[in-house]
Amino acid sequence: MRATYIYGPGDVRVIDAPEPTIQKPSDALVRVVRACVCGSDLHPYHSMSPSPEGVSIGHEFIGVVEETGSEVTTVSTGDFVIAPFAVSCGTCEFCRAGLQTSCVNGGFWNDAAVGTAGGQAEAVRVPLADGTLVKVPGITEATDDALLASLLTLSDVYGTGWHAAVKGGVTDGSTVTVIGDGAVGLLAVLSATQLGAERIVLMGRHEARTDLGREFGATDVVAERGEEGIAKVRDLADGGSHIVLEAVGHMPAYDQAVGIVRPGGVISRVGVPQYEDAPVGFGSLFGPNITLTGGPAPARAYIEPLLPAVLDGSVQPGKVFDRTVALDETPEAYAAMDSREALKVMVKPR
Amino acid sequence: MRATYIYGPGDVRVIDAPEPTIQKPSDALVRVVRACVCGSDLHPYHSMSPSPEGVSIGHEFIGVVEETGSEVTTVSTGDFVIAPFAVSCGTCEFCRAGLQTSCVNGGFWNDAAVGTAGGQAEAVRVPLADGTLVKVPGITEATDDALLASLLTLSDVYGTGWHAAVKGGVTDGSTVTVIGDGAVGLLAVLSATQLGAERIVLMGRHEARTDLGREFGATDVVAERGEEGIAKVRDLADGGSHIVLEAVGHMPAYDQAVGIVRPGGVISRVGVPQYEDAPVGFGSLFGPNITLTGGPAPARAYIEPLLPAVLDGSVQPGKVFDRTVALDETPEAYAAMDSREALKVMVKPR
Repeated sequence: MRATYIYGPGDVRVIDAPEPTIQKPSDALVRVVRACVCGSDLHPYHSMSPSPEGVSIGHEFIGVVEETGSEVTTVSTGDFVIAPFAVSCGTCEFCRAGLQTSCVNGGFWNDAAVGTAGGQAEAVRVPLADGTLVKVPGITEATDDALLASLLTLSDVYGTGWHAAVKGGVTDGSTVTVIGDGAVGLLAVLSATQLGAERIVLMGRHEARTDLGREFGATDVVAERGEEGIAKVRDLADGGSHIVLEAVGHMPAYDQAVGIVRPGGVISRVGVPQYEDAPVGFGSLFGPNITLTGGPAPARAYIEPLLPAVLDGSVQPGKVFDRTVALDETPEAYAAMDSREALKVMVKPR
Repeated sequence: MRATYIYGPGDVRVIDAPEPTIQKPSDALVRVVRACVCGSDLHPYHSMSPSPEGVSIGHEFIGVVEETGSEVTTVSTGDFVIAPFAVSCGTCEFCRAGLQTSCVNGGFWNDAAVGTAGGQAEAVRVPLADGTLVKVPGITEATDDALLASLLTLSDVYGTGWHAAVKGGVTDGSTVTVIGDGAVGLLAVLSATQLGAERIVLMGRHEARTDLGREFGATDVVAERGEEGIAKVRDLADGGSHIVLEAVGHMPAYDQAVGIVRPGGVISRVGVPQYEDAPVGFGSLFGPNITLTGGPAPARAYIEPLLPAVLDGSVQPGKVFDRTVALDETPEAYAAMDSREALKVMVKPR
């Protein structure tokens, strides 16, 4: 089959890879109907150490079950499924608590330890299929593109935006600032809207994106960055934002969050941090009693609750996709997202 | 009057200072009945830059109102009062929200910007008296020592331990680990007990202190530090503690907290951080979805709710005091706490 591998910075190739097979009784094989490229895929695209043999990549996909292992009970051949960006058993204490990204038996895609390959491919072996996959009745490969796109966001970016808003404590009447106008930031805006936020300031400078942010419910857009951006948000939010959703992961976004959050407020991070140490002392978080929260979203936990509004069309998170490519064109998808020509690119294996 | 000043590391002196006077109509003058030395006073005692003219010190006191400015309405001459460790107006948005340590009109004791001196003295000018002071009817200088000691803890250490537990989200059935066997750590144990924690692991190695911790409700004591301490707590708490209350403020205590907290858990800090940067990335807080919270306690907000149980004797937080000195002996109080001969020293101006 054809599958996407990355070999080093800027070096993504679609190659012939072995067909995946059932290896354990809890596995399922899924033929991919739609996959996509994530903002977090751009981190290795920028800075991974060169790998002569390549590493499989991609962690967002929806598809149809082709085969199941003997122990699998919740999905069957022919079922349409959403695969969240983490593999999880569904039975350990963390899965039961809705924190599937900390599953003691699971892991992430493209992880040799878990034995998984990536989702930007024609087919994927899904370990722990009962815990990992969510079946969506009534959907087929022939379902309309817009709905498939929205379903695909449930594998990561919508659940991640939702996680930011939930961990940030967004509720009726909240004032929220979202840092980042990528797909996750825009879906954090949508999530904050759904959770009842009254004022949503979106920090971003790409007009097509911030326009979609306004459509998702942003009440204000701040294009400025650094001190200027901080001053503008503090002014708009009457001295600082109670809740800041950080959907970027770079250090300047962290500093921005600390700059705009109000004393007693919350910074909820879902952008994968590209740093380990950051200011948390008296002058940043401690003095003003700021809470820092967030992490990798347990997207699995959010698929069922978010699904009904996607299926009935009352939300359309799939609007974050502004380009579609064939599987063999995946390298171009990376380049387009890296140059910010495209917001988020869908990959259509056939 | 006699008042305590600090001149540099290890150099605390009790000197003759000018009698405080009413300077603004919102001021009150309080004659100090009991004061004390705080763990956080030891930070300048270790590392302040030498100051030839000295800096007044002390931020915990109870006393009797001697005089009030013309605008003061909530306390009168002769009232017994508790002074929390921050000055606050009581009317700004942060005071109304119960975050008096972020009061826009207030500040801390011994702050030239606010015009305050310290509490380890015979008398103190209290700015913003209506917002800052809490009157306690029925108490006088002649009230028994044990109750005065417990009332004194409401000025800081009890409210600070309570803040740790509240921000940590301690509730019925919680598993909590408290790092630090100083007065704040021990009162965090008491607070966790009051909030319904089922299991409370106290990390500390001074037996007299951890014995008091057990009396306050600790179910387990771990004397080990570093990796050994982490392993022991993880073992006791079945893989990690949902809630960690960090009552020290030094970097090893932060690392300890990160080591023992369970995925999805909370680290609530009330020890004043002696660092600015710390690990918060994928390998520490982000990956396991850890929440970092806490800050300077709004002790003012907690005095009224915590007062009834202190007055009726059902809790005795004043047990953290294990020594009392006269005001002129305050330097010895610092030395005794610094050498850990004393847990917490009360100062009796007369």
